[in-house]
Amino acid sequence: MEELKTLKIGLLGSGTVGIGVYKLVEAQREEMPHKIGANLSVKKVLVRDKTKKREGIDQCLLTDRFEDIIEDDDIQIVVEVMGGIEPARTYINAALKAGKHVVTANKDLIAEHGKELLDTASEHGCDLLFEAAVAGGIPILRPLKQCLAGNHLSEVMGIVNGTTNFILSKMTEEGMEFSDALMLATELGYAEADPTADIEGYDAGRKVAIMASIAFNSRVTFSDVYTEGITKITSRDIAYAKEMGCTIKLLGVAKNTPEGIEVRVHPMLIPSSHPLAKVDDSFNAVFVHGDAVDDAMFYGRGAGELPTASAIMGDVIDVARNIQFHCNGRISCTCYKELPIKKINEIESKYFLRMQVEDRAGVLAKIADTLGKHNVSISQVIQKNSRDNMAELVVITAKVKEQNFSDALADIAEMETTKKVSSVIRVY
Amino acid sequence: MEELKTLKIGLLGSGTVGIGVYKLVEAQREEMPHKIGANLSVKKVLVRDKTKKREGIDQCLLTDRFEDIIEDDDIQIVVEVMGGIEPARTYINAALKAGKHVVTANKDLIAEHGKELLDTASEHGCDLLFEAAVAGGIPILRPLKQCLAGNHLSEVMGIVNGTTNFILSKMTEEGMEFSDALMLATELGYAEADPTADIEGYDAGRKVAIMASIAFNSRVTFSDVYTEGITKITSRDIAYAKEMGCTIKLLGVAKNTPEGIEVRVHPMLIPSSHPLAKVDDSFNAVFVHGDAVDDAMFYGRGAGELPTASAIMGDVIDVARNIQFHCNGRISCTCYKELPIKKINEIESKYFLRMQVEDRAGVLAKIADTLGKHNVSISQVIQKNSRDNMAELVVITAKVKEQNFSDALADIAEMETTKKVSSVIRVY
Repeated sequence: MEELKTLKIGLLGSGTVGIGVYKLVEAQREEMPHKIGANLSVKKVLVRDKTKKREGIDQCLLTDRFEDIIEDDDIQIVVEVMGGIEPARTYINAALKAGKHVVTANKDLIAEHGKELLDTASEHGCDLLFEAAVAGGIPILRPLKQCLAGNHLSEVMGIVNGTTNFILSKMTEEGMEFSDALMLATELGYAEADPTADIEGYDAGRKVAIMASIAFNSRVTFSDVYTEGITKITSRDIAYAKEMGCTIKLLGVAKNTPEGIEVRVHPMLIPSSHPLAKVDDSFNAVFVHGDAVDDAMFYGRGAGELPTASAIMGDVIDVARNIQFHCNGRISCTCYKELPIKKINEIESKYFLRMQVEDRAGVLAKIADTLGKHNVSISQVIQKNSRDNMAELVVITAKVKEQNFSDALADIAEMETTKKVSSVIRVY
Repeated sequence: MEELKTLKIGLLGSGTVGIGVYKLVEAQREEMPHKIGANLSVKKVLVRDKTKKREGIDQCLLTDRFEDIIEDDDIQIVVEVMGGIEPARTYINAALKAGKHVVTANKDLIAEHGKELLDTASEHGCDLLFEAAVAGGIPILRPLKQCLAGNHLSEVMGIVNGTTNFILSKMTEEGMEFSDALMLATELGYAEADPTADIEGYDAGRKVAIMASIAFNSRVTFSDVYTEGITKITSRDIAYAKEMGCTIKLLGVAKNTPEGIEVRVHPMLIPSSHPLAKVDDSFNAVFVHGDAVDDAMFYGRGAGELPTASAIMGDVIDVARNIQFHCNGRISCTCYKELPIKKINEIESKYFLRMQVEDRAGVLAKIADTLGKHNVSISQVIQKNSRDNMAELVVITAKVKEQNFSDALADIAEMETTKKVSSVIRVY
């Protein structure tokens, strides 16, 4: 075989995922000449502390100066796995301006500054790929951009945060309360020391913003996403859900409607027979509906060293194939529409409402009357007597505009017979 | 906007899928300039009978001469949806030699002559894409070739035939016998007039051959695939499976082992908790395992006018993007290894064995003894007494080489106490 050229990678960051990428490049060494017609290797790794040892990475590749990477003309591909907005944003912009192709797993950055970065990439004829930013190892962005490009996609919905799915799975299977399940997730390393981004739905929100942008060809940023986390879900809500043949999941939902794009993250009761209801523990899944493909679902590991690195390697190999065929920038930004975003109070949904009320004649009638005044129809009521003349009342509404429901709820909360509104959860 | 060029398609065949492709090209008319930087239209449609009307297709596009397409330099993309080996093989080879890119849904052809066609494509710098040949609308080949290219894939397993899955679903849910479920499938249009290719597992075998070739980077043809259909499955087998917490599915299985590639299609008992067990009716799903991505699954519509057309359009758009960037042939044949194929009798499996035996002391001991002599361990036995001194015996074996099991089975079948071997089904 004639001497092959070697494509060089500059790796920004060497945390778990960075080490995974390094390992995969090594593991695929013999395959690369066949897959991309060239060798592939990591030339430099940007780290904060050069003296700290990194599992399996040759110490002499480490540098603490970004300049060593940006000024190295030998490096054609930059892989960013540092996370966070800065300095990642500055580094990626600089790399693209220097004509280097970029692969990143940074959902925070893409969900917020995706347009800016994709524009820079376009201007410089560079690739900017980020399959790993959504749902870890699961192939989802490339299928949306390529395989399903002949569809008008109307819905993308998924379980895209493993931490909250693990917590809800434990609450469902073992009757745990939220705080105990969170503690377990932290012990097992599924939840970070500060779990806010996961449990408040911000992480899922960023992923949904990215998926919606690609699926609907219109830019959706994280600030467009309504987010509601799982901190208020109790084992009691889950028990009611089970009674009704449902499971509670934290879902990212994006819909393309004639009135605009709906994009939101919140807990939801879904029928236990729905494919997404079976997605347990730290698995992720994304459900897509298109006018031609009908329903499709993508399932797999949403995080972790090697699954995330798998997605990054897929992108790197794509970039390498583009370099070999001189067609970088072949698929760039696909947001060519400017669709409006619907406000959360304009969205229609069914609701699960659990409250503590005085246990006496006429209370239910009064609540039903109040709901009716706001055009909220009731589709199911469960009443359970507890003690001290108080009863627990669960109402499932028919589909109604969120504004109407919240107006009704405000009125109900103010009634003197209402002791407490315990939970409000949307129903699929 | 400056005047855009129009990329022209020659469509070979105008059955259900052909009409679907035509409809999608029309439905995506406004999107194409943004997605591929050009317009896209069907210029000619090859049909057998020009005078027959085709739903929605302009009569003046029809031709019954292949020459009208091959000699039209304006046509850069040929979409083949005729099916069958000939004349599709001749037409595709001719189109590629004329420098036209080809998109096909023809699994029979790719599973048998894939290498020849991909070689022709390579020689002429053309694209040959066939996402629709496997699992209809589900994106699976592009994810395997691109998104998961950083993995050593060790297993691809799936439900890739909707007809048999519909039949087995009906048998499971409604206790139907095979023949009744087949009749229902025929009435509803899920089964063809001659259902042999579906119910004998040939259709699934072709799809598994294609997936294995791509996943393991080594050519697997249909003749390499061991196939066994579902015609012998009875409602009684399904009832036993349920009793053991299992579901019977027709699975295509491909494994990359150190001793070679295993590739086979046969009914299998899988635990009801396995994601593939929930794939009902005419849905398809493919489960993949790789060293980096771990487990992943792809689920959706495995057939039908628009789902199949969706996969074809994804390929056409890819070809169009390649044309625009002058990089056709960017990803061609990925079979660069020559791995051996394991024979079915070398494969290890667990078995479900149901038989009718004389109901007297010592019979079970004799059977157990015979199995033991061939190194077949028993992991479960269920005995049910029926009438006339005969009992039904169900044995589940531990994992064992197929050769040992069949030798033991031959001995058991010859015992005078064995009245009948009713079923042998592999267990996951």
